[in-house]
Amino acid sequence: MSILVVGSVAFDSVETPFGQGDDVLGGSATYFSTAASFFDEVRLVAVVGEDFPSEHLEFLRSRNVDLSGLQVVSGKTFRWKGRYGYDLNEAQTLETHLNVFESFAPQLSPVHREADFVFLANIDPELQLQVLQQVEKPQLVACDTMNFWIEGKKDALLETLKRVDIFLINEGEARQLSGEPNLMKAAAKILAMGPETLVIKRGEYGVLMFREHSVFAAPAYPLESVFDPTGAGDTFAGGFMGYLASTKNLTESGLRQAIVFGSVMASFNVEDFSLDRMRSLRYSDIEDRYRKVKLLTEFEGL
Amino acid sequence: MSILVVGSVAFDSVETPFGQGDDVLGGSATYFSTAASFFDEVRLVAVVGEDFPSEHLEFLRSRNVDLSGLQVVSGKTFRWKGRYGYDLNEAQTLETHLNVFESFAPQLSPVHREADFVFLANIDPELQLQVLQQVEKPQLVACDTMNFWIEGKKDALLETLKRVDIFLINEGEARQLSGEPNLMKAAAKILAMGPETLVIKRGEYGVLMFREHSVFAAPAYPLESVFDPTGAGDTFAGGFMGYLASTKNLTESGLRQAIVFGSVMASFNVEDFSLDRMRSLRYSDIEDRYRKVKLLTEFEGL
Repeated sequence: MSILVVGSVAFDSVETPFGQGDDVLGGSATYFSTAASFFDEVRLVAVVGEDFPSEHLEFLRSRNVDLSGLQVVSGKTFRWKGRYGYDLNEAQTLETHLNVFESFAPQLSPVHREADFVFLANIDPELQLQVLQQVEKPQLVACDTMNFWIEGKKDALLETLKRVDIFLINEGEARQLSGEPNLMKAAAKILAMGPETLVIKRGEYGVLMFREHSVFAAPAYPLESVFDPTGAGDTFAGGFMGYLASTKNLTESGLRQAIVFGSVMASFNVEDFSLDRMRSLRYSDIEDRYRKVKLLTEFEGL
Repeated sequence: MSILVVGSVAFDSVETPFGQGDDVLGGSATYFSTAASFFDEVRLVAVVGEDFPSEHLEFLRSRNVDLSGLQVVSGKTFRWKGRYGYDLNEAQTLETHLNVFESFAPQLSPVHREADFVFLANIDPELQLQVLQQVEKPQLVACDTMNFWIEGKKDALLETLKRVDIFLINEGEARQLSGEPNLMKAAAKILAMGPETLVIKRGEYGVLMFREHSVFAAPAYPLESVFDPTGAGDTFAGGFMGYLASTKNLTESGLRQAIVFGSVMASFNVEDFSLDRMRSLRYSDIEDRYRKVKLLTEFEGL
């Protein structure tokens, strides 16, 4: 079973209290694809400029990511520049240059249209809708968004939400979208907008998954050194969707395991700049950490 | 097995986005005793002024709290006034009137000195040391503190920490005391100061328990309405110590269960102003919510 992801491939310049990286590999679709590639086949749809170096393409190919949907057009690749303080939960955006991304219009090939698992990364909800109009009969659609679209393209976002099964956003965005400070009430309002499952990401505080009759709380794996939180949300989504696609287990129990795998992938990714930690990661490392999260959370019932 | 608590009994005036209460019953020892009283016998050592109404004493007696160590002296009872915004994790202190608390010197009776379980609530660490000099052979000593003492009485606090088994503080205080932004590193530094177990409270994000070879993460029970977070930390400590004293199970497994009971007690307390939720709470409610927390966190291993 393969996963289709539509999102950004970018250059990031990131500054944290622990160091900095200039024009390193980034982008929501890049992080997602790399994380998901540890579990299943991934097909990436995105756009880059002519300045995009072949070494990055080679890296993605080495992870077995299908790049037939990656358009290379004349112009410069999307660039983002941001900074984190000691509170690594929130980035301060310093610069955004959409460049070739500004005129991106996802065109799915026949193979892409047949995707069973679709992830709409954080892009303009109108583009998310364009993708949904092209995919034929997906088994599961998940999407992400951000404050910028909640504020500027709410109607299109609400249209998208009617058509997705799983919606992943962070805590602040859940409050913003629902207009509700209490997270339980916010979740109920968002579920009423369409998605059957809502995943609220809380950075170092872990993840909450809300469904009609259940809530699941997973902690973040506590780390001694967090170098660069960029891409943590997309890496989470990659592990989550990758595990679901590989098992096709969409029960409550399967979703909970997928949440933990997503969380484990994110915990690895923040240990180094860009996607560097992913380059040396082995599947056995992932399983080891999954077991550690299990030990971290276990307690006896009554 | 009985628990000795030394701390404050106070009048609180609290404003939250959901309402306000003036001169309601508060104080660290009050919250602690009430929560612990659902599990075991509690002996309270504190001071109040002549203005302290008998109805509050009656309430504590109805919870079976031993008040023989509650000094009633001429003057006014300790008063605190605070406000919470929508971010209910942090109070803004508007007024503090120590009143009779200013000259409080805990004097333990022979019965108090024999206590097996001792909780030193958030008071001047010099007073905490005075209490420790008076207790004879406690089986377990736990203590709390706050930013004010970390800043102003660090030496006395470090003295106290050498002599306590379990230290409970919030996340910001852990970072402040250790001078370390990363929580894992902060925890290692604090454990090196003396306590065998460190419990870090994170408000709506739950609790982390650190010991030499283990970490335990417990979520907060997600609530639809949080009215007043005042006393959540002391209520947590009350449930935690109450359960430990009642079972005398100080193993990792027993401590984890105690953390969950503490968390459950705190989740009830914030549902209403002051200690009002405690007035109608039954032990079966506590067990029900414990089971819900279990369901909230469960996932399958590999």
